[in-house]
Amino acid sequence: MTPREPAESPPGDSALAPVILGIDGGGTKTAAWLAIVGSTDPPQVIGRGSAGPSNPLAAGLPTALDNLAAAVAAAWHDAGREPCPAAAAVMAVAGAGRADMAEALLDWARQQRIAEHCEMVHDAAAVLAAGTREGWGVALIAGTGSAAIGITPEGHRHVCGGWGYRFGDEGSGFWIGREMLAAVARACDGRDGPTQLTPAMLAHFQIDHARDVNAALASAQSERNAMAALAPLVAAAADAGDAAAMRLMDRAAELLAELAVTTARSAQFDRGYPLALAGGVVCGSGALRDRLLARLADAELPPGETSLAPDPVEGCLRLAAQRL
Amino acid sequence: MTPREPAESPPGDSALAPVILGIDGGGTKTAAWLAIVGSTDPPQVIGRGSAGPSNPLAAGLPTALDNLAAAVAAAWHDAGREPCPAAAAVMAVAGAGRADMAEALLDWARQQRIAEHCEMVHDAAAVLAAGTREGWGVALIAGTGSAAIGITPEGHRHVCGGWGYRFGDEGSGFWIGREMLAAVARACDGRDGPTQLTPAMLAHFQIDHARDVNAALASAQSERNAMAALAPLVAAAADAGDAAAMRLMDRAAELLAELAVTTARSAQFDRGYPLALAGGVVCGSGALRDRLLARLADAELPPGETSLAPDPVEGCLRLAAQRL
Repeated sequence: MTPREPAESPPGDSALAPVILGIDGGGTKTAAWLAIVGSTDPPQVIGRGSAGPSNPLAAGLPTALDNLAAAVAAAWHDAGREPCPAAAAVMAVAGAGRADMAEALLDWARQQRIAEHCEMVHDAAAVLAAGTREGWGVALIAGTGSAAIGITPEGHRHVCGGWGYRFGDEGSGFWIGREMLAAVARACDGRDGPTQLTPAMLAHFQIDHARDVNAALASAQSERNAMAALAPLVAAAADAGDAAAMRLMDRAAELLAELAVTTARSAQFDRGYPLALAGGVVCGSGALRDRLLARLADAELPPGETSLAPDPVEGCLRLAAQRL
Repeated sequence: MTPREPAESPPGDSALAPVILGIDGGGTKTAAWLAIVGSTDPPQVIGRGSAGPSNPLAAGLPTALDNLAAAVAAAWHDAGREPCPAAAAVMAVAGAGRADMAEALLDWARQQRIAEHCEMVHDAAAVLAAGTREGWGVALIAGTGSAAIGITPEGHRHVCGGWGYRFGDEGSGFWIGREMLAAVARACDGRDGPTQLTPAMLAHFQIDHARDVNAALASAQSERNAMAALAPLVAAAADAGDAAAMRLMDRAAELLAELAVTTARSAQFDRGYPLALAGGVVCGSGALRDRLLARLADAELPPGETSLAPDPVEGCLRLAAQRL
C-alpha cells in the first residue's frame, strides 16, 4: 500500500474534499466504498473494498465485524490513502434490523472511528437512495432471498416477504433453484415431460444420476447458496425456450411483482410510485426482469419510474453525503 | 422380564408354533413385531416393540443398529419370552435401498442371530404385503416424506417422488407444514386474506409474532420434523372450513394422487390396480385421505381396491410367514 501524497492529487480537489464511507453488508459479501463530496452529485467514488459476509445473524458477530473491518481497509487501500476517520459513514447491514445487533455494529464503528459521524440505515433505505431520486417508494430485493420494503415520504416502513428460505423468499435465487430441482424431479419421474433443466443440473453438479443431487447439496458448504447458484441455469434455459424453465421464471416474476404491489398497497402509495430493484437475481437476469416489469405494468397498482440499484452501497454514499 | 413357561401357553399352540419377526425401520421410529404362524392367516402377533430411528442414512449406522436391537428386545419382552432366534425375519428399513447399507444391516441381523433366515425387503414391498392381498400394485407412502412405489407381479419396481425434503416430498407432512407457514406469511403480509392457520401456528409454537417462527424452527431438534408436526393443524383448519387450509389440502391430495397414478403408468398397470396407503399423514388425516380418494377416482388411471397399511410391519410378518 503506497499512500498518495496530497501533492499528487489534482489541485484544489479531492485531497481537501471531505471523504465519506458507505457500507453495504449482506449474508454473502460486504461492500465498502469511499467517495469524495464535491460540488457535483453524486459523490465521486475513490475506493472500493469487499469482504465476506457481515450479516451478524448469519455469520456471527465476530466474523461480521472482521469482514466489515476488512472491507473498509480494502477500500482505503484501493483509494491509495492511509485509513483515517471519514467525515460520515452510513452502513446498511442485513440482520441489523434487530436492535441489539444494530447497536453492536454501531459500537464497533464508533470504537474503530471509521467516521466522525456513523449511522445505520435499513437495507431498503440504501436501495431507495441508490435507485430513486425521491428516496421513498418500494425497494424490491431479489438475491439469494427476497423481500419488498416500502418507505413512505414520512419514513414509515412496510415489509412484505423476507420470511427466509425455510418457507418464504418466493422468487429469490434460492426459490428458483429449489423449484428447478423440483422440476427436474418431476421430469425424471415422468410426472412432467422432459426439460433441458435436467442435463443442465447434471452438468452443474457433475453427477450422472439426478437422484445423486441430494448428496451433492449435502456436501456443499451452504446448501442454501448451492441452491441459489442454480438460478442462472434456469434463466439460460428460459432464454433457450425450455417450457419448464419459462414456467418457473413466469412464476418467480409473478411472486416478486406481488411482493412489490402488496407493499405499495400497504404503504398506501398511488399508482406511479418509485420502484428500485436490487439483488443479484433481479439485476442479473434479463429473463426474470423482463417478465417482472411486464407483470408490474399490468398490475392493479403499477409503479412509475423503475430503476436498478445493483450497488445499494451507492445509496449509503448518497445518504452519507446528506449527513455532512 | 418374566418369561412365560411353555406350560402356561394354550396346549398344542403357540409354544411349539414357529415364531417369526417383522421389522419396519424408518427415520423417526422402528417397529419390531413377533408373531406365531398357525394354521390360520394372518400370523398371530404375540409381541410388539418399538425404538428410535433406524434409517442408517439419517441416524447413522451405529444408532440404527442400537435401535433395531432395542426394538427386537422390546418385542421379546412384550411377548413374555426369552429372546431366541426366530424362524424367519423380514426387515424393511428406510435407507436400505443403498446396497452397502442393506448389507451392513443384514450382517448385523445374522451376527445377532435374530432369526434362522434373515431377509431385507423394500419399504414398499412391506406396505403392499400389509395392504393388499396380491402383494403387487402401488404403495403410496405419505408421512414426514412422500413417495409412490409400484411393484409389478414379476417384482419389477417403479419409483415416483421420494426425492427428499429439500425440493421434493410433495404432499408429505413436511411439505404440508412448509406450505402452511408460507400461507401464514402471505396472510400476515396482506398478500392473501386472513386464515385460521395464523392463530393455530402462533399457539403451536407459543410465540406472539409470526416472524418469530424462524427462531422457533431453528431451535427445534429437527427442523424437518418440527415442520411435519404442523400437518395436523392444517387438517383441523380444513375440517373447520378455513379456505387457505382447504386449498392446501386439495393441493397435497392432487400431488399425492399424481405420484400414485404416474407410478401406475410407469409400471404399465391397468385400471383397477391394487393401492395401499401408508404413512402417518395419509393414514392419520381423513381430511387428506377423502380428497386423495376423490382425486384418484377421477384419475385417468384409477386404482381398484384401496387399503390402509398403517403398520407396514404387518407386511413384514406376512412375508416372513411365506419364507417358512
